[in-house]
Amino acid sequence: MRPHADHTAARAASVRETPEKKENCAGDPALLGPLADNIGYALRRAQLAVFDEVIGGCAELDLRPAQFSVLAVIGHRPGLRQSEVAAALGIQRANFVALIDGLERRRLARRTPDPNDRRCHALHLTAEGEHVLAQAHARVTAVEARLDAKLGAGGRAQLLAMLWRLARV
Amino acid sequence: MRPHADHTAARAASVRETPEKKENCAGDPALLGPLADNIGYALRRAQLAVFDEVIGGCAELDLRPAQFSVLAVIGHRPGLRQSEVAAALGIQRANFVALIDGLERRRLARRTPDPNDRRCHALHLTAEGEHVLAQAHARVTAVEARLDAKLGAGGRAQLLAMLWRLARV
Repeated sequence: MRPHADHTAARAASVRETPEKKENCAGDPALLGPLADNIGYALRRAQLAVFDEVIGGCAELDLRPAQFSVLAVIGHRPGLRQSEVAAALGIQRANFVALIDGLERRRLARRTPDPNDRRCHALHLTAEGEHVLAQAHARVTAVEARLDAKLGAGGRAQLLAMLWRLARV
Repeated sequence: MRPHADHTAARAASVRETPEKKENCAGDPALLGPLADNIGYALRRAQLAVFDEVIGGCAELDLRPAQFSVLAVIGHRPGLRQSEVAAALGIQRANFVALIDGLERRRLARRTPDPNDRRCHALHLTAEGEHVLAQAHARVTAVEARLDAKLGAGGRAQLLAMLWRLARV
């Protein structure tokens, strides 16, 4: 149920959002002016458009992109320390702890104390975590395939190389 | 002043953040695994790294990237309707109204009622808005020049073309 008391207003708002969503994708260069040639701005627009697809694809799994990325790294390297996973993903400690708390509450991941250093925790997926990750991975792969179609042959490798050059400051 | 009551804890937290920030930039492919080949993920990492630079560059102007983009479009096309600027930037109406409210409170932008349709408002920069935009533009241009150095000759045009292909769903 919607959190709106006034259903008429809520419906009107959702009708208004439809054309905006369509125009969202346009990013008319005549109106954007110099902003259209700004790499920072274009990165943000591309990221938001791709995340919209990923969020839509993973909605029924109730998994946000950040949660997917954490499950993906733990699944790839089970037993890594919490601090190692956070550093690899570039997530600040406090935010990362909250993320893991959420995944642990949903029984998708679990922390196990490090026998050599009780201040450290190693991260593992549960069986349910493995299952949800596999489903999310299939959906993300479908989105990535659509991006390949847009980018054309060789586009992915070229784009990834440029993006990581920018990401590694 | 920090909103923390416990200054020792706040200082300890900020010390802890320093090495994480450095590792943030690394994004070790051995730890990231398949995620390193994911365009959605690489877009997010590149966008965050570039925005970090823009936010740092514009910090003394107290201007966030979204505010900069709004000032840039109004400065490029003064007199556009509020709904046109929001659509060009792909910002939902409610969020856009809040953004303009903030810029108007700081006397950087102003709304003028459309004489032909009193439900519509045209947007203009104030003299102070023009001034802040020029200063922000110089700082953003400096960041973009550093990105050019990373991307090499022809990189900008190639990257922009690919990003806008992804942004226009």
